[in-house]
Amino acid sequence: MSKDLENGNAAKDFSEPPPTPLIDLAELKSWSLYRACIVELVATLLFLYIGVTALIGHARAQAAAGGDSCGGIGLLGVAWVFGGMIFVLVYCTAGVSGGHLNPAVTFGMFLARKVSIPRALLYVASQVAGAIFGAGLAKGFQASFYNGNMGGATFIQNGYTKAEGLGAEIIGTFVLAYTVFSATDPKRVARDSHVPVLAPLPIGFAVFMVHLALLPVTGSSVNPARSFATAVIYNNSRVWNDQWVYWVGPLLGAALAAMYHQYILRGGARAVRALNSFRSSSMH
Amino acid sequence: MSKDLENGNAAKDFSEPPPTPLIDLAELKSWSLYRACIVELVATLLFLYIGVTALIGHARAQAAAGGDSCGGIGLLGVAWVFGGMIFVLVYCTAGVSGGHLNPAVTFGMFLARKVSIPRALLYVASQVAGAIFGAGLAKGFQASFYNGNMGGATFIQNGYTKAEGLGAEIIGTFVLAYTVFSATDPKRVARDSHVPVLAPLPIGFAVFMVHLALLPVTGSSVNPARSFATAVIYNNSRVWNDQWVYWVGPLLGAALAAMYHQYILRGGARAVRALNSFRSSSMH
Amino acid sequence: MSKDLENGNAAKDFSEPPPTPLIDLAELKSWSLYRACIVELVATLLFLYIGVTALIGHARAQAAAGGDSCGGIGLLGVAWVFGGMIFVLVYCTAGVSGGHLNPAVTFGMFLARKVSIPRALLYVASQVAGAIFGAGLAKGFQASFYNGNMGGATFIQNGYTKAEGLGAEIIGTFVLAYTVFSATDPKRVARDSHVPVLAPLPIGFAVFMVHLALLPVTGSSVNPARSFATAVIYNNSRVWNDQWVYWVGPLLGAALAAMYHQYILRGGARAVRALNSFRSSSMH
Amino acid sequence: MSKDLENGNAAKDFSEPPPTPLIDLAELKSWSLYRACIVELVATLLFLYIGVTALIGHARAQAAAGGDSCGGIGLLGVAWVFGGMIFVLVYCTAGVSGGHLNPAVTFGMFLARKVSIPRALLYVASQVAGAIFGAGLAKGFQASFYNGNMGGATFIQNGYTKAEGLGAEIIGTFVLAYTVFSATDPKRVARDSHVPVLAPLPIGFAVFMVHLALLPVTGSSVNPARSFATAVIYNNSRVWNDQWVYWVGPLLGAALAAMYHQYILRGGARAVRALNSFRSSSMH
Repeated sequence: MSKDLENGNAAKDFSEPPPTPLIDLAELKSWSLYRACIVELVATLLFLYIGVTALIGHARAQAAAGGDSCGGIGLLGVAWVFGGMIFVLVYCTAGVSGGHLNPAVTFGMFLARKVSIPRALLYVASQVAGAIFGAGLAKGFQASFYNGNMGGATFIQNGYTKAEGLGAEIIGTFVLAYTVFSATDPKRVARDSHVPVLAPLPIGFAVFMVHLALLPVTGSSVNPARSFATAVIYNNSRVWNDQWVYWVGPLLGAALAAMYHQYILRGGARAVRALNSFRSSSMH
Repeated sequence: MSKDLENGNAAKDFSEPPPTPLIDLAELKSWSLYRACIVELVATLLFLYIGVTALIGHARAQAAAGGDSCGGIGLLGVAWVFGGMIFVLVYCTAGVSGGHLNPAVTFGMFLARKVSIPRALLYVASQVAGAIFGAGLAKGFQASFYNGNMGGATFIQNGYTKAEGLGAEIIGTFVLAYTVFSATDPKRVARDSHVPVLAPLPIGFAVFMVHLALLPVTGSSVNPARSFATAVIYNNSRVWNDQWVYWVGPLLGAALAAMYHQYILRGGARAVRALNSFRSSSMH
Repeated sequence: MSKDLENGNAAKDFSEPPPTPLIDLAELKSWSLYRACIVELVATLLFLYIGVTALIGHARAQAAAGGDSCGGIGLLGVAWVFGGMIFVLVYCTAGVSGGHLNPAVTFGMFLARKVSIPRALLYVASQVAGAIFGAGLAKGFQASFYNGNMGGATFIQNGYTKAEGLGAEIIGTFVLAYTVFSATDPKRVARDSHVPVLAPLPIGFAVFMVHLALLPVTGSSVNPARSFATAVIYNNSRVWNDQWVYWVGPLLGAALAAMYHQYILRGGARAVRALNSFRSSSMH
Repeated sequence: MSKDLENGNAAKDFSEPPPTPLIDLAELKSWSLYRACIVELVATLLFLYIGVTALIGHARAQAAAGGDSCGGIGLLGVAWVFGGMIFVLVYCTAGVSGGHLNPAVTFGMFLARKVSIPRALLYVASQVAGAIFGAGLAKGFQASFYNGNMGGATFIQNGYTKAEGLGAEIIGTFVLAYTVFSATDPKRVARDSHVPVLAPLPIGFAVFMVHLALLPVTGSSVNPARSFATAVIYNNSRVWNDQWVYWVGPLLGAALAAMYHQYILRGGARAVRALNSFRSSSMH
């Protein structure tokens, strides 16, 4: 019996943190929640300002004729700016808010029971507000260029159907959310204390990679706040018509990644532990 | 005599893990093996989907006339997407499957006796299946662009012979497998606990570097699953004619790296220890 | 009472270092201060030499007609050289001088009471002197190319007003200084011993990101020493007319980041601790 | 007196390793020296093969007319391949040979008394041999493209004098060697155990940065073995005429960095300790 217990301990060797309660009233009274919301808002603002300003500069260079077409940062530079900003901003905010900066990430974290309902809703509201401020600032500092160059808005690119765009956003957000879950897996963090060191870097790289693939397909969003904010500020009918794709796709992709992580990767381990404990019981 | 023993301990200061048995029946009953296969399959699927989608976007931009030719991510972006995805996906999968994602890496690891025969075969089957699914998804979401732009398939580029392409794939895979062996050397890991932190990054960079050099030569594969999957989905006679190069080259390169690591780097150390122990015996 | 004390300890669990005195006479007698100034001077010299030389090469390639226009490193390469040099040089100098290399960073660190007044003034003087030497070397080794290609100087690009440029430099420097404060937060460093490992990398990336966005707006400076030095060496009236933007913008951006970090992120925590200690007192 | 001793300990808190003897006969009998030479040779071979193959691909794309000029990896890709290979190969070889891969680095390490004379000479011979093999392989696998595209050789670019090229190579190698000394400073390593984690990354980035600046000036070498090997294999009179620049420049730059590190950074500390011990003696 005591052996059984030891076996159990050896098999577990790590006690999973309990799921976050759906609603935690004490949390609502803590300054740290509101500070986290401020941090999400400011970081998403910076993300949109830098990202949209870089996109406008790229669009201007591309629109210029002939030899000038190499004058901008190129599509590769655009991919870098979105991925690199996520690296930098997750690095800056991870210790305060967890560094979501994206309603799809927050939704995945909620499904994995790592944030409560009120925190998730407040985060999304902060992200959307920050993104709108950021896109607004990018327009405010260069109104004429902003409107003449699609305003950094995302829409399904010519030659693609909305269904194809939806599929691309689902897989792209799956890549991002899978990386986030891998980087923040408490079991992994407990085993390898060094894992968090690198976390913001692969998360940023995941965004960079997805942009390299999806920029010519959907303009690459994988972030509903980013697409909604540029739609609000640019306010164009084509952009609004495609808007649902940038909510349904990322939220579905994040949900699939949460299911993959919980049921295949983690859940399987739990099932096996149950099986092992059953076996070791029956063997005694 | 006791001094001799101490010497031995000082010289060893690290007990090498025994080679993995060629066949381990217990392993075949463990859920962790099948979870590892699922993880290899899903990661290789994502690798191919993102990589091929980026390649198609690049090929479209390059095919477009005049000023548009700089509009895509460029060959540099293509190199980034393959190297960067390996960084991200090795980071995500290393703790579950070891993060091979490549039959050549699995073959090298088998030669180094780090995985058993059944695990090696199941991994390769999972990688090939995942890669075919991924290339299929990339085609499914943009069938017309896919077929019109070589389908992300690898073939020996104009101006090169198959022998030259074979040589390039051998050296390229040697660079990748050498980096993998260096990053996962258990002796090194034991000495410098921080080594695994960086492991996925140089492995991804090795792929990035090799692509910068080999894209204009062989289209750069260094991964038989990647080349086989795009051949299956694109199904073109030129691609099939060159296919053997992308199996023989990477497998030979990985085997050479395994031999270099085992016989020159590790084996030499063992030979020296034997020599030293002989000397210290004769001196006493 | 003892419980109260423990509570207090648990809440604090980290004793903030006291603010650096405004003037510390002992410091003025220490060799380490002057060594830090030499290190700041040499690193800023290297930053300007490499950055300006790369900018001149880019400008020459861009000025060349037709097919040659892609022959240089591109705007993306320019962004890399400024961001990457900051990564490398902060890595090299962090242990000696703190790795400021930028009067705006020194100003922010002074506002956060992390450096004394004399150290701040000596650092800025060293940075400006080093930058002028570096820009001078870049000119010295290629005088004709230097003058014919705007000398690597920053000015408000065509199509932007000075106010828009000022706003861009404020936000850009905010991003940089926010990253610096996040990376060097002593509380964070105490909690996560691994944080400093990555510090130079996100700081360099912040500069890289900001350049991707601001190069087509202000030429991207976020560093008064860099803009002043190229103005001194290139000595052009347009450049001098815009010079104030590159001092007011970065210093304001760094001051805003210092306020954000002290009052919202750190100060809030202090306020909450005060509140908690008040509550726990009243509850007993 | 005992206080004095403690002071001394506090001031030192780190015992510097003694300088390596100039000649160590025992070393010459150790397998680890010859293994290190093999590792240097193989890594330099891979460095040249990948670097030169990438350069040839770039030169072909650039030579192609009009729209094709964007078809290659660009000068940015060339800079990446040389910097990135150094990152990967230093990562792979650091634990075995120290990861020099460059006669200038070995010369700097010898001046800093970190390697003996025989080791330095054997390393340089191995690097040069490996580089020649690597360039030969790159030619062997694409002889016609190799000769038609300058063979990846370095020479002073049009518009620059040899003196300007020499200056550029001196400063460029200073940047590289300064980073190497900073990364391997035993005092720093002792204080921050995490420092070596990042070491190969900033060293690779230093090479990347220098290439971004110097490619349009000297073709960017900062490595005599790299320039000598391509001169031997390409065997062109212009390349041979400029060859001395690629030996004198890098060796001078590395020597300057060694002096800067020893006399300003480390030596200063020693002088101060001497001064402090004098002061504390006189005060007692």
